[in-house]
Amino acid sequence: MGKNVAILGATGAVGAELIDLLAEREFPVDDIRLLASARSAGRKLEVLGREVTVQEVSEEALADVDVAFFSAGSDVSLQWAPVAARQGAVVIDNSNAFRMDPKVPLVVPEINASDLADHQGIIANPNCSTIIMAVALFPIHQVASIERVVVSTYQAVSGVGAAAIEELTRQTEAVLSGQEVPMTCFPGKSSKRHLQMAFNLIPHIDVFLDGGYTKEETKMINETRKILHEPELRITVTTVRVPVLRSHSESINLELKRSLSVSEVQEILQRAPGVVVADDPAQQIYPMPLDVTGKDDVYVGRIRVDESVPHGLNLWVVGDQIRKGAALNAVQIAEHLL
Amino acid sequence: MGKNVAILGATGAVGAELIDLLAEREFPVDDIRLLASARSAGRKLEVLGREVTVQEVSEEALADVDVAFFSAGSDVSLQWAPVAARQGAVVIDNSNAFRMDPKVPLVVPEINASDLADHQGIIANPNCSTIIMAVALFPIHQVASIERVVVSTYQAVSGVGAAAIEELTRQTEAVLSGQEVPMTCFPGKSSKRHLQMAFNLIPHIDVFLDGGYTKEETKMINETRKILHEPELRITVTTVRVPVLRSHSESINLELKRSLSVSEVQEILQRAPGVVVADDPAQQIYPMPLDVTGKDDVYVGRIRVDESVPHGLNLWVVGDQIRKGAALNAVQIAEHLL
Repeated sequence: MGKNVAILGATGAVGAELIDLLAEREFPVDDIRLLASARSAGRKLEVLGREVTVQEVSEEALADVDVAFFSAGSDVSLQWAPVAARQGAVVIDNSNAFRMDPKVPLVVPEINASDLADHQGIIANPNCSTIIMAVALFPIHQVASIERVVVSTYQAVSGVGAAAIEELTRQTEAVLSGQEVPMTCFPGKSSKRHLQMAFNLIPHIDVFLDGGYTKEETKMINETRKILHEPELRITVTTVRVPVLRSHSESINLELKRSLSVSEVQEILQRAPGVVVADDPAQQIYPMPLDVTGKDDVYVGRIRVDESVPHGLNLWVVGDQIRKGAALNAVQIAEHLL
Repeated sequence: MGKNVAILGATGAVGAELIDLLAEREFPVDDIRLLASARSAGRKLEVLGREVTVQEVSEEALADVDVAFFSAGSDVSLQWAPVAARQGAVVIDNSNAFRMDPKVPLVVPEINASDLADHQGIIANPNCSTIIMAVALFPIHQVASIERVVVSTYQAVSGVGAAAIEELTRQTEAVLSGQEVPMTCFPGKSSKRHLQMAFNLIPHIDVFLDGGYTKEETKMINETRKILHEPELRITVTTVRVPVLRSHSESINLELKRSLSVSEVQEILQRAPGVVVADDPAQQIYPMPLDVTGKDDVYVGRIRVDESVPHGLNLWVVGDQIRKGAALNAVQIAEHLL
């Protein structure tokens, strides 16, 4: 039995990946509806061998939908997810709108698929950096109980959206040819001041909140606690945008309840779903964003015991931001619901 | 009274910066001698308004020198630093050759200029990432005693040398135009396997040692302990190369002996020599490598209390790798000796 599927935000970077993944994973699609803002309506996209015209989102367009993937930002989700859910759809929402809502499951299927049982029509897909970290941490947490996390991220520009991927390319060309550098996307489209990302680092992702932390940093803290069912987990985060097109990387320091050797961690992660261990320094095997782009799994390497603290561990974790960090995780949630 | 100055490695990235800095800082130079390998001998460079021919290094070329700046790698330093010192020169060595030698002072002038008193003809300039971190940590350590450091680096390609700066540019052009990407410099010239740095991250700097740590990571641990006179300082490091031309960035997590507020840390660092506080998130003021390139000081921002541990603190630190990370620190050492 095929499902009626809607994708809201179909013309964005995550929307395009969702379209590809439905085909690639042979998701049982009956009707497919592509939805977007009025601006993108009328565009035609090839989906599962059919030519589909993008429609403007509306109550009617969300009627008779079984699964609705939302990836058009928090404001759009706040407005339209309840409309879709009220009409019987299960909304899998990639925005921040509902993630910390206690009535909404926040799910990484490898970790807490059982939370899906409690859904009330809306399921939240976690932040990309959170998913990538959580997939790597959960198997270790099960065995040796993580007591503290210190993470610094190296986040690709894909997280800002399709226009940002294009702008990094344009900026880089402009720098190399000595032209004026176009600046409209970084750190965010609505930022007061726009910055050069090419050959630069920007330690500012999403807006600043109290205490000098960004919203991105706060998301990683709160969402990781919710996904792992560890509301008191001690975790501190610094998020940084880097001139990489897609795939996020994370330098993660852990304090565990008991010591694990490097080979024990490798074995734990090799057995874990969704994780690939890429950790053979002598052969220059370690995860790099260029290699991980387009891959489904989260790659872990540079596994080292940290002697500066009891039961310490360092990891280097890389995952495709658009794929496992967003679209793939959403499709996996839908597959679990079937 | 002018000094007779020699620069060994005059044709490299650090050598070029040394030449600029001697003029800019009006270092009292009488004779200036530019030395390099046989391959670079014969080249003519403009130094302090004079045209100087690069000579091959030799015992004679190192005679009658007062201050010799060495920046041509450990092997060259091991061979020639004792020859220069024996003939009466003070060698300020930018290589790793002598840094952990207990008879050789390892100096960041803002921190431990007093160690210079004990020199026996050779003074070591610390690793670039170490200098940048130590300048930011020392003022905090004096006030609140640092108990543990967790640092992840974002290191520019300038650390690999002048050829690597050129190769990142060539690689980037090749990626953008769909040409074959030249790969000879990354992660290092002598690596088994060469990698693409453009639009990528490489979590591998210098060679791998026991326990999976790189030599770069080990240098940061050991050198920081020596410079701060804290042989037991608990510190763990992950070093990563990023596609930035020059200026290294570091995400630093600290555990202190007592709590400091953000404004206390800002005040401490504002008073500290060699440090600029760039920390006003509301105005999008935070250090970025593009802004810090060419600057003498180490820039600190994103100062935040880390609630995941007692007396925790997060910092984002950026410094010009060639300038304060290498050439400027060496010239400052020479100025202290005068």
